[in-house]
Amino acid sequence: MPELVSINGKVTEPKDAKISVFDRGFMFGDSIYEVARSYDGLFFGLNEHLDRLFNSARLLSIGFTTPREALIRDIYELFDKSKLPDAYMRIIVTRGESIPNINPAVTSTPPNVVIMMRPLAPIDPRNYQVGLNLVTSKFLRNSKKALDPNAKSGNYLNNILAMGQAVSSQADDAIMTNQDGFITEGTTWNLLMVKNGEVISPPDSADMLLGITRKFIRDICKREKIPWVERFFTVEECLRADEVLMTASIKEVMNVHSIDGKVIGELGPMGKRLRELYLQDVKNFQKTYKRP
Amino acid sequence: MPELVSINGKVTEPKDAKISVFDRGFMFGDSIYEVARSYDGLFFGLNEHLDRLFNSARLLSIGFTTPREALIRDIYELFDKSKLPDAYMRIIVTRGESIPNINPAVTSTPPNVVIMMRPLAPIDPRNYQVGLNLVTSKFLRNSKKALDPNAKSGNYLNNILAMGQAVSSQADDAIMTNQDGFITEGTTWNLLMVKNGEVISPPDSADMLLGITRKFIRDICKREKIPWVERFFTVEECLRADEVLMTASIKEVMNVHSIDGKVIGELGPMGKRLRELYLQDVKNFQKTYKRP
Repeated sequence: MPELVSINGKVTEPKDAKISVFDRGFMFGDSIYEVARSYDGLFFGLNEHLDRLFNSARLLSIGFTTPREALIRDIYELFDKSKLPDAYMRIIVTRGESIPNINPAVTSTPPNVVIMMRPLAPIDPRNYQVGLNLVTSKFLRNSKKALDPNAKSGNYLNNILAMGQAVSSQADDAIMTNQDGFITEGTTWNLLMVKNGEVISPPDSADMLLGITRKFIRDICKREKIPWVERFFTVEECLRADEVLMTASIKEVMNVHSIDGKVIGELGPMGKRLRELYLQDVKNFQKTYKRP
Repeated sequence: MPELVSINGKVTEPKDAKISVFDRGFMFGDSIYEVARSYDGLFFGLNEHLDRLFNSARLLSIGFTTPREALIRDIYELFDKSKLPDAYMRIIVTRGESIPNINPAVTSTPPNVVIMMRPLAPIDPRNYQVGLNLVTSKFLRNSKKALDPNAKSGNYLNNILAMGQAVSSQADDAIMTNQDGFITEGTTWNLLMVKNGEVISPPDSADMLLGITRKFIRDICKREKIPWVERFFTVEECLRADEVLMTASIKEVMNVHSIDGKVIGELGPMGKRLRELYLQDVKNFQKTYKRP
């Protein structure tokens, strides 16, 4: 399968895609990123992902000034060169290169921009129908007061630790909570709970990344008059819910089968409906979007 | 000034020192590091730094198995090749390379080991005598419950945000506190307060990295019968202290002149004494240490 990487516009095969060890992304995780996927050659939600990339840059005071149109063009050019039918796209923007000193003011180059264009890994249909088995992370999610999860950055050890715990427990993924025991988000996705016909999400104020798929699902709920509620809830409450769902750009809407070994169940009616409505929105986007 | 980098034993000039963009250190800050400096060609505290490197690997479940002796030999070989009279040495060990997925289990290579050997930047003597001007970070230090600061890792955005605030405030550096307002540490150093002849440190349980220079100063205090106290304290209390000091491998023992614009003062008798005793210990080490 072809796979390409672009570094500041220079296109290479993955094995040749290298960056300076003085890049602050490498030394400190001093970088931001986004992931999007294409559907029949069109990247869904790309504008929203780039909005968030610019917001992450603002939250971390990374002076990233490449115009949106140039990024969109670069992404599609790399996609075309890859000749992939569809792709997983990751864009990483670092603060630039510097001497090994955390002071952001010593940065001596403009941001480095890396775009990875990869084949979409096939997702087992069982993940949608049966769902994933989760554990509750013993590592709390980073607090907004320390490092705002809304800066989608190169600092992912907090989530890696949680994912490592899931792997050690033979689970698929992990739920992260705050210090009061309330769910914030998954390692790389948002969690929704369905109870008595309501779709319930942690509020925007939670220590979580405001997911783009979550936003699309919220839009769908408002449009379809499905009650959307935002409030804090615990893992205990999830276990008594009718359905628990995960949302993310690559996962789309996925079912949660169990948490900490306690079964919630297979894909339920709300999960099925939201997933179908989401995929319908993708289709509508495909009909109307004009790519560069 | 000559400067060299070694990547998995391959020695290059800095401009050629490159790493895969699929290295997890670059993608996620999924790495650990240490910094040490040499005195007349001998790296002080190197064993302690390597102890901590192995401990960071353990805390993050990074399977790093290079023997200590091989690391020491590599560090001195690179130092010799650089022909530097003295050097700043940074060793970075990443989890390895993988597809862009946070799951640590997908890592497909052994850890990458990067050693940077650089000229020691001269430190303005005023930093010791007059001292640095600090601000209190509005970003809390990461909590141990989320990401233990004792894993000296490639996730430094929390500290970079604090340092960025210091730079914006025309200050030199920043103090980080926990959510109860107690001081944990500086951005890349430990803080000590001196009051009525006592040297007071936040306790080992604080959300901080257990500094090696802090440990050496504690050893000195115990040996010299200088009262060493560990307890939590606030910035307010620091402002009423007799002296406030910073400790770190490169800074050694440095004076804090002011915090948030409020002056504490120039280097005091305890700071002067601890600094002299520390440099005496360095001299003693130089007399007895046999480098490979």
